[in-house]
Amino acid sequence: MKLLVVGSVAYDAIETPFGKTDKILGGAGTFISMAASYAGSQPQVVSVVGGDFEKKYLDLLESHDIDIQGIQIKEDEKTFFWSGKYHNDMNSRDTLVTELNSLGTFDPVVPDSYKSAEYLMLGNLSPDVQRKVIEQITVRPKLIIMDTMNFWMDIILDELKSTIATVDVLSINDEEARQLSGEYSLKKAAKVIQTMGPKYVIIKKGEHGALLFNDSQVFFAPALPLEEVFDPTGAGDTFAGGFAGYLAKNGDTSFNSMKNAIIFGSAMASFCVERFGTERLQNLKKEEIYERVLEFVELVNFDYNAGK
Amino acid sequence: MKLLVVGSVAYDAIETPFGKTDKILGGAGTFISMAASYAGSQPQVVSVVGGDFEKKYLDLLESHDIDIQGIQIKEDEKTFFWSGKYHNDMNSRDTLVTELNSLGTFDPVVPDSYKSAEYLMLGNLSPDVQRKVIEQITVRPKLIIMDTMNFWMDIILDELKSTIATVDVLSINDEEARQLSGEYSLKKAAKVIQTMGPKYVIIKKGEHGALLFNDSQVFFAPALPLEEVFDPTGAGDTFAGGFAGYLAKNGDTSFNSMKNAIIFGSAMASFCVERFGTERLQNLKKEEIYERVLEFVELVNFDYNAGK
Repeated sequence: MKLLVVGSVAYDAIETPFGKTDKILGGAGTFISMAASYAGSQPQVVSVVGGDFEKKYLDLLESHDIDIQGIQIKEDEKTFFWSGKYHNDMNSRDTLVTELNSLGTFDPVVPDSYKSAEYLMLGNLSPDVQRKVIEQITVRPKLIIMDTMNFWMDIILDELKSTIATVDVLSINDEEARQLSGEYSLKKAAKVIQTMGPKYVIIKKGEHGALLFNDSQVFFAPALPLEEVFDPTGAGDTFAGGFAGYLAKNGDTSFNSMKNAIIFGSAMASFCVERFGTERLQNLKKEEIYERVLEFVELVNFDYNAGK
Repeated sequence: MKLLVVGSVAYDAIETPFGKTDKILGGAGTFISMAASYAGSQPQVVSVVGGDFEKKYLDLLESHDIDIQGIQIKEDEKTFFWSGKYHNDMNSRDTLVTELNSLGTFDPVVPDSYKSAEYLMLGNLSPDVQRKVIEQITVRPKLIIMDTMNFWMDIILDELKSTIATVDVLSINDEEARQLSGEYSLKKAAKVIQTMGPKYVIIKKGEHGALLFNDSQVFFAPALPLEEVFDPTGAGDTFAGGFAGYLAKNGDTSFNSMKNAIIFGSAMASFCVERFGTERLQNLKKEEIYERVLEFVELVNFDYNAGK
């Protein structure tokens, strides 16, 4: 089934203890759609870039069966640019530069050929932009998944809550779940967020994995213990993209299917952090993805014997 | 098979956002042996208390089929006392009082009837005391499991490493694994610790679960997402006790058996934090333990479909 992705397509410049990059391909929309493409979901992207955006990156997206006709190119403006520096523990970072550029006035236009999407993945953007995309879809999608962040909670909480009220799945990290709900316990936080609208809540805990809640069940997927996290940029978006892509490809929104989608997303995120930016996501083979998924099975699988 | 436990039997006074206690039963040896008893392992305890230690607590331990003849009673001294106050997030705490009392001069004596134990669980104590217990066992146990903490790394690292070199399983928390190994990645940290002696390393991540490493495999067990953590005191010891008790009861030290032991320990720890001290561990029913284990199965179980 069709998956519509909205999110930034950007330039990032990243510094980690392992090195630094010049401007490279980044943005939530990029990571989401690349991860979703590996599920075989042929995502359609709505975004905006400036005239400085290199054609080779658009070609790269197209080479992954990503439909890019919804990416506006504002020739007279520049592409959204973010630069950050990670600390030694790789869990915290300083933002060095944020230049909104063309994203600052982004008015999303959903092409006609996208308007029948059954699956909609709203990458982290202003909740107003997210809402404008929802309003352009002809028939209410089967599943709307929304990612957001604390920035919007701090400055436009009411608009954020209006958009959250209309989606099926909210994906946020643990600290954001606590901020949004006012509850420290993640189990309680998920319950509070469910009263705001979403039937499903995904709480991302970074290196500690992710939790999926519905009204009565909870599923936990760990992050794969890695020898080295090279660059965490985009890991959360890659996770969400893998999740959305898996569901759209299989057309099944049962809780069991969502568990698999969480595992697929976790596997994609574990690749993402192995290199700078999208580097590791550019040429993944089907076999290595399947092997990575099997590592997750191995990691958590047990056959309990209640004792002799 | 027989399980010998060495660890403190103590008085704790605990303050959390939910309330505070007077002096109640505590100590690593207490939590370990109570958790191990629920696996059906009839643990034998080596410890020390003072003349002020109430008989009702010794009776409580005996009522759980715990052999207490190895608990020395120093009539003229007082029982080890610890008092702590947890912060609102329940993840950090301040130690208010530490009175070593009878534990300060503890010279462990292993009764003859304990000396053939096949399983030995060394609760967190001075590495010298731990070593003295190992030296009194007649035949080298099938499995020696050791718990420790950063305190010993800070003050007597060499003695600690000498004891670590002689054990099979080391159980420590994530920050301690990093400190001991000098590696931030827990996967790398486990490898470094394995070169120090232990074939198996358990890294406890508190509310984020626990990892078990052997030479080639890794297993991850989450902590159960709870609505409320009432009092985390003793949770790590309870986890270790459940782990050791499960293994001793079943007499199987394969990696698959250790996975189950980790799950059993996690289930016991999830009970422990629901009330103050040992309160929740005093009257557990077999059925509720089994149900709790099933919650772990539900939490992580998935049947992966690689896509249609």
